[in-house]
Amino acid sequence: MKQITTVREMQQTVDLIRREGRTIGIVPTMGYLHEGHLSLIREAKRNADITVTTIFVNPAQFAPGEDYQRYPRDFNRDIKLVDSAGSDFLFAPTVEEMYPSSFSTYVEVGRITGILEGKFRPAHFRGVTTIVAKLFNTIKPHVAVFGQKDAQQVIVIRQMVHDLNHDIRIIVAPIVREADGLAMSSRNTYLSPEQRKESATIYKSLKRGEQMINEGERNCARIIAEISSYLTSQPSLKIDYVSVADADSLEEYTVIKENSRILISLAVRVGATRLIDNIIVTL
Amino acid sequence: MKQITTVREMQQTVDLIRREGRTIGIVPTMGYLHEGHLSLIREAKRNADITVTTIFVNPAQFAPGEDYQRYPRDFNRDIKLVDSAGSDFLFAPTVEEMYPSSFSTYVEVGRITGILEGKFRPAHFRGVTTIVAKLFNTIKPHVAVFGQKDAQQVIVIRQMVHDLNHDIRIIVAPIVREADGLAMSSRNTYLSPEQRKESATIYKSLKRGEQMINEGERNCARIIAEISSYLTSQPSLKIDYVSVADADSLEEYTVIKENSRILISLAVRVGATRLIDNIIVTL
Repeated sequence: MKQITTVREMQQTVDLIRREGRTIGIVPTMGYLHEGHLSLIREAKRNADITVTTIFVNPAQFAPGEDYQRYPRDFNRDIKLVDSAGSDFLFAPTVEEMYPSSFSTYVEVGRITGILEGKFRPAHFRGVTTIVAKLFNTIKPHVAVFGQKDAQQVIVIRQMVHDLNHDIRIIVAPIVREADGLAMSSRNTYLSPEQRKESATIYKSLKRGEQMINEGERNCARIIAEISSYLTSQPSLKIDYVSVADADSLEEYTVIKENSRILISLAVRVGATRLIDNIIVTL
Repeated sequence: MKQITTVREMQQTVDLIRREGRTIGIVPTMGYLHEGHLSLIREAKRNADITVTTIFVNPAQFAPGEDYQRYPRDFNRDIKLVDSAGSDFLFAPTVEEMYPSSFSTYVEVGRITGILEGKFRPAHFRGVTTIVAKLFNTIKPHVAVFGQKDAQQVIVIRQMVHDLNHDIRIIVAPIVREADGLAMSSRNTYLSPEQRKESATIYKSLKRGEQMINEGERNCARIIAEISSYLTSQPSLKIDYVSVADADSLEEYTVIKENSRILISLAVRVGATRLIDNIIVTL
């Protein structure tokens, strides 16, 4: 596996790969990799000739007071994991490389960025779409793989790709979970043993919501109330939101429509740690 | 010359060209072409193997009340001109192709878009950078040619290209002028014979500013006052701004620095028509 740290070298490298008629897959990450990330790399390898994994903790998607400074980092461990998953390249630029002091351009998706995560993290998606556009222009991929864990991020990036005419196919890989159902996340490392134990309820609450829908419940308020009561049964968990919405448009339902794909998504705070999770129910 | 109207066909076409190792140059225009545009096409041909000229009157860069609806259009004449200038492709999408009803993503350059043109046309540059990003992603050019007539636009696009890591070389072609010095513009067609005659003073005022600098004047207020008095000597001309600034950063001078490139730029209204022009003085 080859490591690259500058935009210039990355662009020259992918130009050669494209000239040879080979396809490129990109897996953008913020590092501190877990099995979820590695599943994205394997998915990219199935869908492209050459895989480029990126590691960059993107300051633009953190608000002041969020966990940018303390976000977990272990670059040496990450290198080994990316290599072992079979990535051909690791692109890991510095903050100065991606955001020189003169930087002043942002890519911003409207509408769907104002709800759910966007409501609690107002500048978050602007940071995400800006860095993803930069990575797309740097690595010029044919396909890009993102995790379903960040469900709204996937929808926002699809919108950006569609609106700005990025000639890139977006692939979404399923959530990878711990044995007790907790969605894998670099932020799980923040949790105390007690918080970690209580966090298993997050997935149980989503499964309970899925079960209600499968058993015929169509009233979203009742589903949200049931999920919320699961979550608040755990002393450590504070709810930011629980949402039942159309899985493609994020339009929130009052009554679930038949023949739809439903995204149940939520965010909770566990002490100082903020966790998100979701499940899709297809009717 | 081949005409293309969809993003999809354009992307497939340029992918084949790139695979053959040939370079692509793009000339984005809003049509109603004049000799200035044709000089851009010729410049693209000198710098790339294949030239794509685009014609699209971009609604996103016009504010309500501006001249989007009445902007001059003559597509059949344009086709012949683009062909005669030697462009290999003409990309002319519909508004629906570029801005489907779900469209909600914008590319926005900060700081330098808040002054000069951006002050008088607040959403203008957001519209410009968004459509240019879309055209870049559609045509995937190696080089892009813009006219120096839109001096601030060139600086804004350079900033976007730098910030978003577009792997594209920006080429700026000189202003093409009528015999009496008026900068060629599709909007000159709006002018009455009397207005057209008075508009020749615009370039004369810029040349006077250049002369003052070359003769040693360094006080910007005096230069601006002199240019303004030239302009207001014509009954039809109303000044939006006259600026003396650094040609790269657009930082406005009080006193001109030695060894600098100075952009003298202005915007005037001639009746309902808004015209811009500029000159660069190198010390």
